[in-house]
Order: sequence, then C-alpha cells, then structure tokens
Amino acid sequence: VPDALSTLKERLGRIADLSTARLVLEWDLQTMMPPGGAAARAEHLTTLEILTHELFTSDEVGNLLDELRPLEASLPHDDVDGCLLRVTRRDYEKATCVPTELAAEITHVTTEAHPVWVSARAGADWNAFRPWLERILELKLRYADCFPPGDDPYDVFLDDFEPGMRTADVRAIFDRLKPELVDLTLANSEAPAERFVGGPFPSEAQHAISLDVMRAFGADDGSFRLDPAVHPFCTSFSVSDVRLTTRYAEHDLTAHSLFSTMHEVGHGLYERGIDPSLERTPLGHGCSSALHESQSRLWENVIGRSLPFWRWFYPRMQAAHPEVLGSVPLERFHRTVNGVRPGLIRVDADETTYGLHIILRFELEQELLTGRLAPADVPAAWNARMADYLGVVVPDDGVGCLQDVHWSFGGFGYFPTYQLGNVISVQIWDRLREDVGDTDELIERGDFAPIHEWLRESLYRLGRMYTPEETIRRVAGGPIDPEPYLRYLRDKDASLAAA
Amino acid sequence: VPDALSTLKERLGRIADLSTARLVLEWDLQTMMPPGGAAARAEHLTTLEILTHELFTSDEVGNLLDELRPLEASLPHDDVDGCLLRVTRRDYEKATCVPTELAAEITHVTTEAHPVWVSARAGADWNAFRPWLERILELKLRYADCFPPGDDPYDVFLDDFEPGMRTADVRAIFDRLKPELVDLTLANSEAPAERFVGGPFPSEAQHAISLDVMRAFGADDGSFRLDPAVHPFCTSFSVSDVRLTTRYAEHDLTAHSLFSTMHEVGHGLYERGIDPSLERTPLGHGCSSALHESQSRLWENVIGRSLPFWRWFYPRMQAAHPEVLGSVPLERFHRTVNGVRPGLIRVDADETTYGLHIILRFELEQELLTGRLAPADVPAAWNARMADYLGVVVPDDGVGCLQDVHWSFGGFGYFPTYQLGNVISVQIWDRLREDVGDTDELIERGDFAPIHEWLRESLYRLGRMYTPEETIRRVAGGPIDPEPYLRYLRDKDASLAAA
Repeated sequence: VPDALSTLKERLGRIADLSTARLVLEWDLQTMMPPGGAAARAEHLTTLEILTHELFTSDEVGNLLDELRPLEASLPHDDVDGCLLRVTRRDYEKATCVPTELAAEITHVTTEAHPVWVSARAGADWNAFRPWLERILELKLRYADCFPPGDDPYDVFLDDFEPGMRTADVRAIFDRLKPELVDLTLANSEAPAERFVGGPFPSEAQHAISLDVMRAFGADDGSFRLDPAVHPFCTSFSVSDVRLTTRYAEHDLTAHSLFSTMHEVGHGLYERGIDPSLERTPLGHGCSSALHESQSRLWENVIGRSLPFWRWFYPRMQAAHPEVLGSVPLERFHRTVNGVRPGLIRVDADETTYGLHIILRFELEQELLTGRLAPADVPAAWNARMADYLGVVVPDDGVGCLQDVHWSFGGFGYFPTYQLGNVISVQIWDRLREDVGDTDELIERGDFAPIHEWLRESLYRLGRMYTPEETIRRVAGGPIDPEPYLRYLRDKDASLAAA
Repeated sequence: VPDALSTLKERLGRIADLSTARLVLEWDLQTMMPPGGAAARAEHLTTLEILTHELFTSDEVGNLLDELRPLEASLPHDDVDGCLLRVTRRDYEKATCVPTELAAEITHVTTEAHPVWVSARAGADWNAFRPWLERILELKLRYADCFPPGDDPYDVFLDDFEPGMRTADVRAIFDRLKPELVDLTLANSEAPAERFVGGPFPSEAQHAISLDVMRAFGADDGSFRLDPAVHPFCTSFSVSDVRLTTRYAEHDLTAHSLFSTMHEVGHGLYERGIDPSLERTPLGHGCSSALHESQSRLWENVIGRSLPFWRWFYPRMQAAHPEVLGSVPLERFHRTVNGVRPGLIRVDADETTYGLHIILRFELEQELLTGRLAPADVPAAWNARMADYLGVVVPDDGVGCLQDVHWSFGGFGYFPTYQLGNVISVQIWDRLREDVGDTDELIERGDFAPIHEWLRESLYRLGRMYTPEETIRRVAGGPIDPEPYLRYLRDKDASLAAA
C-alpha cells in the first residue's frame, strides 16, 4: 500500500507541475506576451490541458485510487494522506466526467477569446465579443451536461469554484443582503463626489506605493512580484513564487492601484501561507474561491479601508501624491475611500454597492445559462439592472457588461464567490480579533505580523485539506452567515455619517 | 500513409508545445521569477523534460517513422514533408539514445545550478560554483556515453549545437584564425582608452535607445519584447512571439545595452523570419547555433559597428547620452566601439579579440571533458590563458571563469559556434551585397528592410529544413571559410588606423 501511495504522489506531482506550467503561460499571456503570441499560445495551453487531463483521468490514477481505498478508510479525518486521497478522489471523479476533447476545446476557445475581450472592452464593442460568448456558452453547457443534474442548472458551475455549495444556498444569502444593500445605497446616493478624486495619480507613484503596502502586509520580495495587467489577478507557481497584478488609472482615486494591490496581496498571502509539504499535490492551493476572496477582501477592505490603517499609511499616501493629497485631511480622505458611491466598475466599488454588482452578475449568469437571456440582449439587461439596483446610467459597454474578464475564460459561477468572500471575511475577522486582541492598535502602527500569522495558522496553511464548508467552520467557528457582514456595513455607514 | 503523416504531425505538434512551455518557464526563470521560485521551477522543468522526452521517444513515434520510411524515400530533397521526416528521424535517433532519467536529471541539476551561478558570479566565488560544475560534468559525460564514440570526445557535445560538424573541422578553422588574431591584438594593445567610455550611461536611456534600434532593424512591437537579464539571450515561443533580453552597465560604453540588444535582435529576426508553416514542428527553429550566431553577429557587428550605421544612428545616440557624447565627434566614437582593446568580458569584446575569448573556452572545455583539467584548476588555467592570448590580468573569477552562463546549463560545445558564426556572417554578408547592392547607402539612411528581406528569403524562412552544412552552402554559396572573415578584420583594422 505505501508503494501505491508514493506512486500516486509521484503521478500527482507531475500533474501539478503541468498545471503550474499552464499557470505560468497564462500569467505570461496576461502580463508579458506581445500580441503576436496569441494564436500559438492557444495551442500551447490546449496541449497542456490535453496532457494534464489525460494524465489525471488515466486508468493508472483510477486504479491507484481504488487500491488505496482501504488505506483512505483507515486514516483519521485530519491525516494529510487521508485528505490527499479524499480530495484527489473527488477531483478525479469530476475530471473523468469530462471528455478530454471538450476540456481541450474549452481551453482553446477561451484562450483565443482573451485578446478579443481585451480589444472589445477597449473599443466598447459588445458585438465583437458576442459571438465568442455564444461559443463559450455552448461549450460550457456541453460541459454541464457531462455531470448528473443538480438541484439547479447553475449548481455545476458554482461547484467548480465553491465545491459542495448549492445555488439555493447562495440565493438565500443574497436574498438577505439585497434589500439592505439597496437601502444603504439609496440612503447615500446624494453624497457629492470629492474634487481630489480625479487625481492625477501618476502610475509610477501608484506602483511605488503599491509595493510599499504589499511589503508591509507581509509579501516578501523574495517570493512576490507585482506587474500591470488589464484585469488584476493573482496566481502562484509555488508557495514562494507568487505573482500579483494591478492596474493604473491616473484620474480616479477609487481606482488607485493600491486597492487592487491590497486585494491581490490577500490572495497572494493565502497561497504563500500554504504548508510547503502540500506543494505539488492537489492540496497545494487555496480551498475555494469564496475563501480566497475572503482573504482578498479582508486585506483590501476590512484592513485596507479602515481608519486605523489610514492613520498609519496616509502620510505615505500624501507623500506619494503631494499635489493632490497634500492638503487633504485624513478624515476626508478616509471618508472618500469608504463612502457609498454608486458607480460603473465592480472592482472599484465601495463595500456596500459592491454586493449589488455581484448580485446583478449572479442573476444574469443564471439567465444566460438557462437560455432566458440571449447574449445579444446582455447589454440591455445589464444597463437596466444597473439603473434599478444602483441608479447608474451605463454610457457604453466597455464600462458595462464588457468590464470583467470572467466570461471570456468561461468562468461562470465565479462572481458569487466574491460576495460570499465579503461575508466570510467579516466572520473570520470577528474570530481573529477574539484571539489577537486590539487589532486597531496593531494596524495603526503598521504591525500586520500578528494578523498575518493568525490567518496563516488558522486558514492559509490548510490549503485544500478540508472542504470549503469544513474550512469555514474551522476558521470562522460556524457556517456562512450574512449577519456579521451586514452589521459591519451598517456600523461603517453610521461611523462615516457621524464623522 | 497520409494518415500516418498527419498523426505524426499531431504528435510532433504536442511535443513542440511542451518544449515551448519549457522555453517560457526558462525565460521567466531568467527574467521575471522571484528567487523563491527556484526550487519549484526545477521540478516544473524536469517534469516537462520527462514528458517531452517520453512522448518523443515513444514507440508510437518510432513506429510512425518506420511506417513513413517509403514516403520519405519517395519525396524530393526539397519537399517540406521530406525535410520534416528526415530531421525528425535524426532527432529521434539521437533522443532515443538517452534514457529519460538521465535527461531529467540533467534538467533538474542545471536548473538548480542557475541561481548558484548567478550568486557565485556576483560574489566572484568559484568554489561556490565548482561542486555544481563537477556534478554537471559528470552528468554530461554520462550523456556522451549514450552515443557511439566519435572521432573526438568533444564531437558529441558539438553535435548538439552544430549538427554534423566535427571537432577537427572547428580546430582547423581556429588554428587558421588564432595566430592572426593574436597578431592583430598585440599590434593594437597600446591604444589608450577613451575618457568617455566610462559614461555614465543611465539604464533608462540605454533601454529607450535599444528599443529604437530593435524597431529600426525590423523587430515589430507586436511580436517582440526586450527585458533585462543577468546574461542576455533570445528565445521565441512562436514566429510572432520573440523575447530578447539585454543588460545595463552604466559605466562602460563597450558594454552598452545597444550592442547586446543588436546581437539578440539578430537571433530574434532569424526566429521571426521562419516560415510560419513550420511552426509546431521540429523544423520551426533556427538551423544551428553557428547559423544563429552568424545572424546575431551580423546585425551586431557587420552592420551595428559599421561607419554607415553610426552615420545614421549617432545623432540619436548623442541625444540619448548628451552629457557624455554631446561633444564627441562621430569618428572618435566609431573608433572607440571598434578599436581592438583586450578586455575581460567576452560579450563586450571587440571583433578581433572576441575570437580569442572563444578559443580559450574551446580549449578549456575539451580539457575539462577529457579530464585533463580539473574543475578546481579552471581559474588558474583561465587566468593564465587570458594573460597569454590577450595580455589581460584577471582580477577575480566573477569577471573571469564565472562570467558566462553556459557551463551552468551544461552547454559544453556551444562556445565555438559563436566564432563560427562570426566567420559565416562575413561570408553571408559578401553574398548579400552581391544581390542587394550598395548596403552602405541603405544603412546610412536607416533602411534595413532590403537587407532583412534578403536574409529572410535566403536563410530565415528555411528553419531547420536542411542540415547546417547544406544551409550554409545555400546562403553563403560555399562551405565555411575563414578567409573572408580575416580579410574583413584586416580591412577594418587598416581603415581604423588610417582614420
């Protein structure tokens, strides 16, 4: 039996390496590749997908898993090898449902779609992207057909990002949030925009100060990079090789690269904190998208938009942008980067309106995937709902339904995990403060190490050992619960109003 | 038979994609990767090597090649499919000699050796690198033992970079060159160094003007990038995704990034010019290292150090470095970047002394590989020969025997191809001028298109269709011949003396 286990680990190591090679090629595609590389890159990624899928769904892996069933049953739930076998078996069972040809085609089409999306977004040209979305939708529906039907047609998509969660669970949480978010948004909809919001904030200064905050949060130069990308993201090629990306808008404080950097640092610290012994196994990544987003949103918002944080960091921010911020008092700045201000762009949204951007996407995705909404009608549906939920008029699709990268890679099911992450982030934060003590005082002197260490020990190091549900219970002490998050938003709203 | 051919092409396409993934990971390793990524990267590259080697040396490929033998015999020598089968068969026969485990171990050890070399070089610490060289030597000798013995123990190493060439052929050429190079060097050894050689040349200005010359030579932004690296190199991931690297020394004109950029542009234009139909096949790269170097040295030296080039480009160079070069006349600048000046660093050497740097390495490699020289004795042997051939005292190993990356990746057999490239570059240039006409006039007005086009049509597009020997005959009209090169060096020397 130990022989079968080490053979399996060796095979999984190879598969993990191939998957990582693909991640490197995808990172390169989004950060470094000249446009001429696109067609060949689709071939490279497709081949990597084919070989990874063939290796993982091979009879050899299946036979090893069969042979190791008695070992798995004999091991305690917490045993790392037991976790490895459990998670590998689940992944294997999902992967073997999907024919290699289909997996390959999805990779090929979505890779080709990336530059199409980039230029459609730049040109605010929905019709340039629409045929690609149609093709991707068709492929993803064929993908869904590979699995036994769930309670809801959306379940299969959600499961790829939030294993084990049901659409009905998400809907229950969002139904609780939506009216409260709409109320809070409308109550704040008349706040005037601040003059200094328009910058200019030169890219070089944004980059330098983004590196500052990245380091302060605990991202070491030996293991992290920060590069520009059209759509900010984080990826990792080992626990000590983490790639963050951000972007630079020079005329909008709420789109300052600092915020997307803090967001991606949260993802990066999670990957960086995974127990190194889990590397090159299926356990060596973050547990789920919602747990990942709980960390990006915790560092970006719960910490990075707090008053204690800005008490510490604001002098540096002023020094980075002396003409624009030199004479702006801290309190006014803090109010500006927290104020509820309905806007067009999800990733630049304040914490309250953010959820409405997600709910909009969650609804549209379900309608698209069940055929109730045709790709041609997405702009109209998008714009109508932006008006309804946020009171915002969308001037063009570039800042409307083309703003996000996700549909171009077929990532249906991802969006809701952002808002679940917001909800979980506050649950985790409440628990953290019980153990760590006066976090305001720590943050105010820029000492993030105790916070980082608690998160590493309680969450990051676990990787994918447990299911998302188990992991949330471990780190937050209970199941997903929207109440702490709503309380957090209301408290913030009240304190801003009082300030 | 057509079915077997298309199956083979499909397999070779996958193998080419895997090889390209490896190139992307290697490029990333040398340009982007944070140091923390090194250990995992060795695993990734080793896995890619294992899978590539397994796929290529599989019985399936062997059986397809057997099945296609009659087709290959029936096709004319110039038929692309015929070329593909011929080259694939040769590659296959070589690859099947080497066990996958050994190929994997070489990849693993040489990848781990890269950061060791970088830091040993920075610290001028031969002893830090020596055990790695010993290990790499041992592996490469085991590698050599996989093949039937050649006329010379070095033949097997040379063949990896210059297929079909023998050590005896190289030695004959170098024996012809060496006394002439030594004479030319000694005759010039008393030229005083120019004051402005020391700069400063700020990195940003070097980068900007390196991009200028890259574009002027025909490297389009849609297909090229230029990044810094410890040791400049060029790699390509498709004919329209070419990555150049350079480095920035701020206090040495002869180490200005412009020269290494022009060198790498030469490599890049070659890869860029390969017929796109050869992509994802074994024919889709440059023909041999010497032919590749003929292009880097042609663009860097034959064009890039010529007086017509500087008549055109010098005003831009002065504008990039106004304090240092503003009042330096063209002729004096041109003399400085061409003057024979024995120095420590190969890649910064003038055209005359360059060959002596190569001959030194060619000799030491043969002695190392036959056990006549122990790794521990390399510094002493290196320094003694630098004194003999170049009259140069080596102050430390960082600028001595640790300066080049090649041994760290086991690239024994590569160095001689640089000097062969110099020799071939002049043969090609003579031929090009017969067809293109007054190249001086073209260069002087910055019109490189007719030169680029001739090279593309005569050489680049062919990829690996023909053997290096055949290809040299096609493009240069005859076999390798050192006489035109010696004439070129003597003419240059005379014209500089007269100026």
